[in-house]
Amino acid sequence: MSKQVAVILSGCGVYDGSEIYETTLTLLRLDQLGIGYRCFAPDIDQHHVIDHRSGEVAEGEARNVLTESARLARGEISTLTELAADDFDAVILPGGFGAAKNLSNFAEAGADMRVHEPLAEVLKGFREQRKPIGLMCIAPVMVPRLLGDGIAVTVGHDPGVSGAISAMGGLHRSCGVEEIVVDFENRVVTTPAYMLATRISEAATGIFKLVDRIDELMDL
Amino acid sequence: MSKQVAVILSGCGVYDGSEIYETTLTLLRLDQLGIGYRCFAPDIDQHHVIDHRSGEVAEGEARNVLTESARLARGEISTLTELAADDFDAVILPGGFGAAKNLSNFAEAGADMRVHEPLAEVLKGFREQRKPIGLMCIAPVMVPRLLGDGIAVTVGHDPGVSGAISAMGGLHRSCGVEEIVVDFENRVVTTPAYMLATRISEAATGIFKLVDRIDELMDL
Repeated sequence: MSKQVAVILSGCGVYDGSEIYETTLTLLRLDQLGIGYRCFAPDIDQHHVIDHRSGEVAEGEARNVLTESARLARGEISTLTELAADDFDAVILPGGFGAAKNLSNFAEAGADMRVHEPLAEVLKGFREQRKPIGLMCIAPVMVPRLLGDGIAVTVGHDPGVSGAISAMGGLHRSCGVEEIVVDFENRVVTTPAYMLATRISEAATGIFKLVDRIDELMDL
Repeated sequence: MSKQVAVILSGCGVYDGSEIYETTLTLLRLDQLGIGYRCFAPDIDQHHVIDHRSGEVAEGEARNVLTESARLARGEISTLTELAADDFDAVILPGGFGAAKNLSNFAEAGADMRVHEPLAEVLKGFREQRKPIGLMCIAPVMVPRLLGDGIAVTVGHDPGVSGAISAMGGLHRSCGVEEIVVDFENRVVTTPAYMLATRISEAATGIFKLVDRIDELMDL
């Protein structure tokens, strides 16, 4: 029986959901390593819909996070509330604004942010069982609220976001786009991905390293 | 000045647009090879919207092909009518049902299909200039209508689709998911991708070979 990793999505598209390339590259690397995966997303309305051509809010449009995330999973997806840490060996959260708008309200509230409560419940299970947790791009900003104080993460170099992480009790480490930050004690791995990437191949390098390290940690 | 490749999209999601993994893997490989790219899509309504969770038509919903394709391009996209073969060294069309529903009506009409006329115009330019053309998944079914008779392509092994290709004057070659079919004379490269893939790593192998061959053909 191969290792199994849960991947938690937040929609489909960088500006209002999961970052598409980050998600695809995560799944590619898991599969290349022979690791099984299953995607999950909350069955809630998106915070809003962004027209990705104009960058503007699409007024009057409403989409569901689980339904849109299903695009990224080719239909193979389950509701987040069905995810139990018992059934998986690790969990990975790609980035995209969905992490800051749907899984939390960081985009609006900054360091006063709240996280989607069922997500906190799920992550608590992985943390209690000391199963590795990977997050990329903006998603690591949720770590202080999801996993507690003093856990080292990266979002690259962004002073605003790293300041918010510190203000919430987290520990921010600067990091290049092709590198990862590993908090071995807490078994948390992060990479900046599209917080810094200007090319998809740069994002891929960091994300592949993150998945490789998650793979190693599952054996420890 | 690096080589430049145009990538033509048809929405965002396997059942009503461009296949997300196929598109992402194409862009990844182009970037890994140091090849520049630009995404294009027609500014038209989608044939319909499919709820990717249920697989059913989302009644009453309407989406625009260019706007949804912009999700796959992180906002960096242009209208198909702005694409001129003069400006690029090759063109690639990922698959997904968008190729059979938005770029053509193959999904409804089979061998009686029509193609989106501006797409035919654009591809004609690449063909006249003998610039390489790559297509994957279901997209090769458009080749007889877009590029003419007797061009060898693959959609894997599907008897219905390959029969339709033959009926329209095309030439179908059976092919495994990790392989490509190259028509050297006509400079057309195809791979089955998600017509056959059961794992993303399989699709990646075939797609990377397709992009690598397009890269080689640009030098010839």
